[in-house]
Amino acid sequence: MARDERGVTAQSEDFSSWYNELVLASGLVDRGPAKGTMVIRPYGYRIWELLQAELDRRIKETGHENAYFPLLIPQSYLEREADHVEGFAPELAVVTHAGGKDLEEPLVVRPTSETIIGEMMAKWISSHRDLPMLLNQWANVVRWEMRPRMFLRTTEFLWQEGHTAHVDEPQARAEMGLALDIYATVAREWAAMPVVPGEKTPGERFAGAVETITIESMMRDGKALQAGTSHYMGTNFAQAFGIRYAAADGRDTLCHTTSWGMSTRMLGGIVMTHGDDRGLVLPPRLAPHQVVIVPIMRGETAATVVAAADELARKLRAAGVRVHVDDRDQTPGWKFNEWEMRGVPIRIELGPRDLAAGTAVLVRRLGEQGKQTVELAGLPATVPGILADFQAYLLQRATDFRDEHTRTVDDWASFEAAVAAGWALALHCGQPNCEDDIKALTAATPRCVPLSGTAESGQCVRCAAPAAYGKRLIFSRAY
Amino acid sequence: MARDERGVTAQSEDFSSWYNELVLASGLVDRGPAKGTMVIRPYGYRIWELLQAELDRRIKETGHENAYFPLLIPQSYLEREADHVEGFAPELAVVTHAGGKDLEEPLVVRPTSETIIGEMMAKWISSHRDLPMLLNQWANVVRWEMRPRMFLRTTEFLWQEGHTAHVDEPQARAEMGLALDIYATVAREWAAMPVVPGEKTPGERFAGAVETITIESMMRDGKALQAGTSHYMGTNFAQAFGIRYAAADGRDTLCHTTSWGMSTRMLGGIVMTHGDDRGLVLPPRLAPHQVVIVPIMRGETAATVVAAADELARKLRAAGVRVHVDDRDQTPGWKFNEWEMRGVPIRIELGPRDLAAGTAVLVRRLGEQGKQTVELAGLPATVPGILADFQAYLLQRATDFRDEHTRTVDDWASFEAAVAAGWALALHCGQPNCEDDIKALTAATPRCVPLSGTAESGQCVRCAAPAAYGKRLIFSRAY
Repeated sequence: MARDERGVTAQSEDFSSWYNELVLASGLVDRGPAKGTMVIRPYGYRIWELLQAELDRRIKETGHENAYFPLLIPQSYLEREADHVEGFAPELAVVTHAGGKDLEEPLVVRPTSETIIGEMMAKWISSHRDLPMLLNQWANVVRWEMRPRMFLRTTEFLWQEGHTAHVDEPQARAEMGLALDIYATVAREWAAMPVVPGEKTPGERFAGAVETITIESMMRDGKALQAGTSHYMGTNFAQAFGIRYAAADGRDTLCHTTSWGMSTRMLGGIVMTHGDDRGLVLPPRLAPHQVVIVPIMRGETAATVVAAADELARKLRAAGVRVHVDDRDQTPGWKFNEWEMRGVPIRIELGPRDLAAGTAVLVRRLGEQGKQTVELAGLPATVPGILADFQAYLLQRATDFRDEHTRTVDDWASFEAAVAAGWALALHCGQPNCEDDIKALTAATPRCVPLSGTAESGQCVRCAAPAAYGKRLIFSRAY
Repeated sequence: MARDERGVTAQSEDFSSWYNELVLASGLVDRGPAKGTMVIRPYGYRIWELLQAELDRRIKETGHENAYFPLLIPQSYLEREADHVEGFAPELAVVTHAGGKDLEEPLVVRPTSETIIGEMMAKWISSHRDLPMLLNQWANVVRWEMRPRMFLRTTEFLWQEGHTAHVDEPQARAEMGLALDIYATVAREWAAMPVVPGEKTPGERFAGAVETITIESMMRDGKALQAGTSHYMGTNFAQAFGIRYAAADGRDTLCHTTSWGMSTRMLGGIVMTHGDDRGLVLPPRLAPHQVVIVPIMRGETAATVVAAADELARKLRAAGVRVHVDDRDQTPGWKFNEWEMRGVPIRIELGPRDLAAGTAVLVRRLGEQGKQTVELAGLPATVPGILADFQAYLLQRATDFRDEHTRTVDDWASFEAAVAAGWALALHCGQPNCEDDIKALTAATPRCVPLSGTAESGQCVRCAAPAAYGKRLIFSRAY
């Protein structure tokens, strides 16, 4: 298989190998020692921090407060909600031994925190005046994965999990929608991922939820990635944990709860939405370095050029740009490849001749404008705009790609062709065994019923029974 | 035992009960279900976030990069460094079962991450050009505690752990000092804790370290709290994990490593440094609400007063102040008690008569100025200065308290009296069995050899053997 000098298979040749090799070669992650674990290296963690900061800002702005709940949960807690334990039991990691002794009751390493937060909410909520209770937690969770994959399925990942309690169903459903809106906005405007919000079919719901809504995004191999989910639990967890309040009229009433999460999986989504044969392509708003300046260091002019590069970096920083000067002892060509592979949006090359002419060479990681000779003095004023344009370009490009690879289909042959290359928009009967049938034949599953879809009736694309949901669904192979 | 209406014992009556009850009553924490675990509630977590933001800023500013390493560590890793495993073995929580199966090798829930980070550093470092490697991680860690205590000793806590690798001992020791300087500055300037930096005696060192330096702070019961530590590991971990580099002359060389950590324990320190009979006293820089405005809502003027309070809050926010308006349906007196107990630095009372007169009543949580009638319009300009003064006042007050409760002692009777009430500055022989002897008789241990101490020789305060260390040590009972 063809690989470049850093050993990364071309995307066009083998998408899966490209992904697996690139996330390692670009310094985003490394393999942890225990099966399925990952080390998030500084370059990858910085992307997460930038995403986290924006998400946290929006979560707080909408009235949620951060808190922290214990990692270790008594195993019996999970068993209190029947669907929940059934969904999570196969993935649990269990502490049986601590402080030199076997534990009386095993402790589960949290796979998610509905149960322990439910237990605490029951303690904290007594009156309608305590509601809504709007909590969020930034945490690590552990789910034992049989087929682990960096960022997408790791036995441990980082996320935020929102958990809220409300007086009634309308308020809880509004909260579920609000959280998904935050996710959709952050995914589009920060990660440049043109996500589609929609409702999950019953078979794809969160374990214990009454309704799950999701944002689904198309990767460059045509597969879907679930990038964030929000759940309305009805009174299921309130019942299991006793989350009750005295209403204004004094009546003892069950709360309606929600939960919602977005995780480090988003980093895998960014890689697979924008990357190409040459490596990563990072959206400027989440790029650790938005600009890398490569000074062309030759002989005695080297010091002058590096000084000019540092000066430019200072001015760009003052203009709010994250910039890095690469003055390592390597050839310019090597550095160009390196930063292309690592997805830096803009490279600025600065040599002695440029300096004499008061110019620099500006290279965008993608797009038709390519290499441009620009006025050096103007860069601090122009670069922020170029980055904004690049950000918009990535979202547009991904949107076009998604639209080009999405087909509205009404017969089985077209369905099969559509899900082999991308997404199929199709009517479905809603029967679990028909979903299973489709999955067995094509590996495609119902990703969601898009919220924006228009009302439509007809017959199931597979079995010709009357269509359910009143709308078309997105079917796709998925991560 | 005398308790106020919220059930908190007075500090002056029983310090330990006061602490245990206050951290719950003030809404900082709650008990988790598994033994020794804590839930950090929004009010407590916000303090941690504010501390974290400042610490993170300083860690990054000094060239460190954040990364994230797996929670679960193969048990064999810990065994590679003999002192390290001996120190941590009794406190480990162990996952023996995952994904429905017994694991071939048990996984330890990280008690600290030297081992797994050492393993990765060995992989990432090959040349002197890769050094120094300056990493930091924000994470949860688990250490099984026999006598848990909120914030101070919990089976799980949150912290940052810095891990660095260097070409030689001088550089690694400089790093160890740099990290402690950051801790001392943040503790003093943000937490208003007048910490004393010093070196640990061999018996108090981190498991596997060549040298441990610490910041020690005095609590209001005279006991010491270790508020942050920094360790020089020599080549111990480099040897155990193979962290080696090719020097400029090509020679294969062992790295010198450090690690350093500050944790949610700091929140316990803040409570015990500043709190009093009436409850918490929070340093303004870390207070979730720096100012609480209590509108005096009576009859038909209520709406006008609340509107004026909201307007004042907007202006204070614009001046960079974290402010909360308490317009709940409760009496002013109830709210005054509540916010005093929760440690808000400044309370502003605003009633219809104040409003008519263009004034407000400003009450500081501590200090001699007490209640003041102030001009309403001037508050956005004056409050930031009042908060800064309050911050400085807390540090000065804690410094005075520490100095008043620290005695330089040269005989055993004075030593015993000193450590019963506070700290003893004494000469010591440096013999472990003499340390044990002192501990058995007084519960006091050597906290550190202060870095600022002047050279002094003489005989051990306990056994009269020649003094070691060349300086006096701080002895104290400790958390």
